Parts: sequence; C-alpha cells; structure tokens
Amino acid sequence: MQKHTDREYENELETLRERVLLMGATVEQLIGAALDAFERRDVALAQRAIENDDQIDHLEVDIDRLCLRILALRQPVASDLRFIAMSLKVVTDLERSGDLAVNVSERVVELGSFPSMPAHDIICRMGSLAQGMLRDALDAFVTGDALKAQAVTERDNSVDALYEQLFPELGAIMRTDPESVDSASRLQSIGKYVERLADHATNIAEMVVFMVRGQDVRHGFEVAHAGRR
Amino acid sequence: MQKHTDREYENELETLRERVLLMGATVEQLIGAALDAFERRDVALAQRAIENDDQIDHLEVDIDRLCLRILALRQPVASDLRFIAMSLKVVTDLERSGDLAVNVSERVVELGSFPSMPAHDIICRMGSLAQGMLRDALDAFVTGDALKAQAVTERDNSVDALYEQLFPELGAIMRTDPESVDSASRLQSIGKYVERLADHATNIAEMVVFMVRGQDVRHGFEVAHAGRR
Repeated sequence: MQKHTDREYENELETLRERVLLMGATVEQLIGAALDAFERRDVALAQRAIENDDQIDHLEVDIDRLCLRILALRQPVASDLRFIAMSLKVVTDLERSGDLAVNVSERVVELGSFPSMPAHDIICRMGSLAQGMLRDALDAFVTGDALKAQAVTERDNSVDALYEQLFPELGAIMRTDPESVDSASRLQSIGKYVERLADHATNIAEMVVFMVRGQDVRHGFEVAHAGRR
Repeated sequence: MQKHTDREYENELETLRERVLLMGATVEQLIGAALDAFERRDVALAQRAIENDDQIDHLEVDIDRLCLRILALRQPVASDLRFIAMSLKVVTDLERSGDLAVNVSERVVELGSFPSMPAHDIICRMGSLAQGMLRDALDAFVTGDALKAQAVTERDNSVDALYEQLFPELGAIMRTDPESVDSASRLQSIGKYVERLADHATNIAEMVVFMVRGQDVRHGFEVAHAGRR
C-alpha cells in the first residue's frame, strides 16, 4: 500500500470541507430558486429547480464515502474527528433540505398563478428567514463558531411564530371560499416545507454547538491520546 | 491513562448497539402510542405520549458522545467503523421520528373527538405501514441485512400512494363543509407526519444498504489497513 504523508491527509480533509461547502452552496441555490419561483409565481423557474436534485444526492453519497475513507485510513482524532463525524450528520440535513426545496418547487408548479394574499407574504418572510439561518449555520460549521450557531437556533422561534399565523389565515380563506381549498392546501404545504427548512438549519447549528462544546468535555481523551501516538 | 483490553472495546461496541436499540424501541413505543391515540381518539393517551419526548433527545446526545469516544480512543476499522458511522446518522432519523410522533399526539389532543371518515382510515393504514417499515429497518440495521433493508425502501411507495388519496378526500370535506376546515387541516397534518415517519424508516434502510454495499467497495482499504496494524 502507498504510504501517505501528512500533506496528503491535510488535502483529504480540505477536499471533505470543500465538498460539504459545495453541497451546502448547491442546496442554498436550490432553495433560493424554489423561494424565488414561489415569490414571483414563476412556474418555469420552479420546473428547472426540480431537475437539479440529483446532484445533491450524489454529493451526499460521495461525502459519506470520503468520511469513511478518512476515518478508516487516517484514524483522525480531536477536532478532525469531530469535523468528520459532524460532516456525516450535516449532509443528511442538507440532503433533506434539497428534497424540501424540490417539494416547494413542485407545489409552485401545481399552483400556477394565484391571487395576492397575506399567506403568500407570510411564507415569503418565513423563506427569507430560513435561508438566512441555513447560510449562517453553514458559516458556523465551517468556522466552528458556536456563538453564531447558538444564535441560529434562537431564530427558529421567529419562523415558528410566522408559521402559526399561517394556519388561521389559510383556514379563513378555505371557509369563506370553498373553491380556494386546493390552492390554500398547497400554500399550507409550502409553509410546512419552509418551516422544516428552518428546522434543518437549526439541526445543523445545534450540531455545531454540540461539537464545539464537546471539545472541552472530551479534552482529557485527546491529551491522553496525543501522548500515545 | 488506563490501558483498555479488547474485551473492553467489545463491551463499548455492545453498549453502543444496545443504546441504539433502546432508542429505536423508545421511538417505536412513542409512535405506537401516538397512532393508537389517533385511531381510538384517545386524548389522554396522546397527552401522556407528548411528555415522553425528553428521553429520546438525551439518548441521541448520549449515543453521539459514545460514537465519538469510541472513534477517538479505539480508532475502529472495517465493519465496526461502518457501524459507528451509521449509528451517528441513524440516531438523527430516530430523533426526528420521535418529534413527529409528538406532533401526531399534539394534533390528536387538538382534534378531540371527530366523526368517522375515510381519511381517518387511510391515515391509520399509513401509520401501520410506517410502523412496520421502521421495525424492519431497525432489524436490518442490527443484523446488517441489506436485502431486508432494500425491501423496506420499496414499501415507501405504498405509503405515498395512500397519502395521495388523502388530499382529494380531505379537500372534498373542506369544500362541502366549511366548518370542518380546522379538523380536516389537522388530519392533513397527521397524514404528513406519518408520511415523513415512513421517509425516516426509508432513510435508515437506505443507510443500511449503503453501508453493507460499501463493505465490498472499501474492501481494499480494510485489507491494506489490517496489514499495517
């Protein structure tokens, strides 16, 4: 077997970091397109967004394999180990987020054009909050910034508060105009997807907090371990 | 630092396996209670189920820490490594499944009593399929049975087919009886939660397939690695 240098190990970790960031950027783009399509009632844009999901699934499998490969061949410890374990979990949230973006786009295609209403504005505001949360969660992941990650988890409440406004709003529309039931149901679904996007961003942020805090808790192991190498 | 024996390492892996199974059993129980409460319109049962979620959150954090500890101190390879990486991902799906069970119970409490209708039966059938899928996915995880896992992923279609029947059913109710909008919306939510429970079971099953298949792909590394130890 080929002997690897520390430099090669560093390169593998850098490749992992780049792939996770690429996956994050791809998912952010997909979410951005879905929410833009919803905001502007742009069926063509939504249709294009639906076709881009495959890339994300491939990235998840790639990253899982890369993590296992590094764990098996390099037996990383300390912060490298935590970064790899976190990557395994983060890509799951990113993949689900990509699926949700596709779900939003699918509902936008089904909706076609629909009248202006408060529910639409509420969902747009939820979407813009969820996008910001995901962006900051990924930033915190890359920089290992527990404070920034903690702040993301606290912003989930604002999304939930908007989400709670959505249901009476849509319920009233459905009661007064039975013909609007189908489109109101689709708006309800989109609201639910966006609420879950914010949940995934929160999950990523919570993992960052856990992993960074875990550093102190597991410090004893790392020191002991470093001495054994 | 205390020197560990192989026996101790085996015990740690066994502890990990037991914790994941305990978490799986706890989540299954929570889902069972939520679905029973829904089927029998049993608000008291639903209320008790809502209070049991904390245990699951603690189990996830425990298992994450145990995985990182074993990875850092033991530097496992081959099937042990894959088992640990899979555990890190599986507990995420289990935790979300527990949350969904709580969401089902919350909607059951809000619904109180409601008349018999086809949508209720459809959701009960979806629930029983989703429960079976989770049970089999966890079995496949424990035994590393890729065939059983593959079969679980194929059953997701039956849940989706039922889920598609649900929406026109509930839409018709809401159009003909505007007063039923609130309870029909809650049934819609429960349908969505159950559909996602089946998705999580599918995710767990897909991970089992990936990890077992990955064994062949990564065989070269393992052999090379064993030679280095």
